[in-house]
Amino acid sequence: MTAAPRQVTSLTNPLVKAVRALHLRKARDETGQFVAEGLKFVIEALELGRFPEILLHGPEAAGHPLLERAVKATLGAGGQAVEVTRDILAKVSRRENPQAVIGVFRQAFTDLEALDPSAASGWVALHRVRDPGNLGTVIRTADAAGCGAVILVGECCDPYSVEAVRATMGSIFALPIVCADEGEFAAWRARWPGSVVGTLLSATVSHAEAAYRRPTLVLLGNEQQGLPPDMAALCDVNVKIPMRGRADSLNLSVAAGIMIYAVTA
Amino acid sequence: MTAAPRQVTSLTNPLVKAVRALHLRKARDETGQFVAEGLKFVIEALELGRFPEILLHGPEAAGHPLLERAVKATLGAGGQAVEVTRDILAKVSRRENPQAVIGVFRQAFTDLEALDPSAASGWVALHRVRDPGNLGTVIRTADAAGCGAVILVGECCDPYSVEAVRATMGSIFALPIVCADEGEFAAWRARWPGSVVGTLLSATVSHAEAAYRRPTLVLLGNEQQGLPPDMAALCDVNVKIPMRGRADSLNLSVAAGIMIYAVTA
Repeated sequence: MTAAPRQVTSLTNPLVKAVRALHLRKARDETGQFVAEGLKFVIEALELGRFPEILLHGPEAAGHPLLERAVKATLGAGGQAVEVTRDILAKVSRRENPQAVIGVFRQAFTDLEALDPSAASGWVALHRVRDPGNLGTVIRTADAAGCGAVILVGECCDPYSVEAVRATMGSIFALPIVCADEGEFAAWRARWPGSVVGTLLSATVSHAEAAYRRPTLVLLGNEQQGLPPDMAALCDVNVKIPMRGRADSLNLSVAAGIMIYAVTA
Repeated sequence: MTAAPRQVTSLTNPLVKAVRALHLRKARDETGQFVAEGLKFVIEALELGRFPEILLHGPEAAGHPLLERAVKATLGAGGQAVEVTRDILAKVSRRENPQAVIGVFRQAFTDLEALDPSAASGWVALHRVRDPGNLGTVIRTADAAGCGAVILVGECCDPYSVEAVRATMGSIFALPIVCADEGEFAAWRARWPGSVVGTLLSATVSHAEAAYRRPTLVLLGNEQQGLPPDMAALCDVNVKIPMRGRADSLNLSVAAGIMIYAVTA
């Protein structure tokens, strides 16, 4: 590994360009890297044994003891730590008020077969989720509730997009993320020892009244269509969250939160 | 009222400029108007007896029976209905893929004193909420759960901003929105006949185990600080949503959804 220059002030610096490119899924897929913004995220990662491959920080962060720790950990793990200008941080984050620290980490995915159903009482699967903010928020909620993993079924938005990672508030590092196509998920689900719970508008049982067998896997459909019939057929408990007003649906991350806490209460 | 020209193609048209200006809180406060995008929103409003003061629609929407109904209702109530270009719709909505219909409506606020606590079993109050997406999502959830109102306490973000209204998915028209300062809220709360429930990290009772007296008012703090002591002191039931993983908090709209459905289950 070649040591990076300690300070970078040019937007055309190759390292800066590489980090900026990680806003694009293509660059994330090719490099296997992703961006996590903020010292809170970086410290959370370190505590879970995940080290930045690149650490950018603004001049105002220099001297902060937690940043010093992050720099040491980054360099110790063979990564690059670089001081950049506020302007570069703003360009990299695409925000007017950027975080003072930006970490580039290696994406981590877990195989379905590596999950141990006995490791947690609650689990979450999302089918074809479209919105990165919703996905990140569900990952945060699943972490808060102590779920075992978040499983992405079929073609989903990228859990490692900048928007999704932001919404996780650091939980992206805290629990296994799994990707599976519909067939893999169906085959794996056949061996699931507990309940698989789907929310359906046509269900007759309320989410608060159903009986859930643990470990309980909550399966949620996407923002537009909910669960299609072939996915609903994989559930052995179908429930509805009662709609008592004029709204005929909930935001996906809200519905996920209500279901996750219902099955883990 | 002067009839507007039936078609407008210029971005400098005064009507178009006035609608675009409603992205700014200043223009919303001065006119008392707000923007709701999409035919779904406009139809929802009509069904609740709320008529657009201005209705913009793209050429592709012409002939749609629901749009025809909306145009008739708008003109019948003394409003203006105008066909505009897709380009204008994109500029008005600040979106590359704009909705084909945009309605401008009069903001509606309800007084605290006009609320009838016996009208619903669940009620929601938010203290100093900052994020319009969160606020809109809470309004949607409160509507879905059949709550009586959403009460905004202290300096909150604008429920009639374009972002907040979008996130309500139409529920902005469905339930009373109340603004009150801290003192007004405290005085009104003193006469509340049921429980006032706050979520506090330091609470010892889980949200799922507490006893709630109806009507139940859920009071939530904002994204950064949660409930300050003076607001927490207004609650007679303090609960926590259990944090079992590494995350130390939930997204505000997710926490609100869990609490709203806990007290109305």
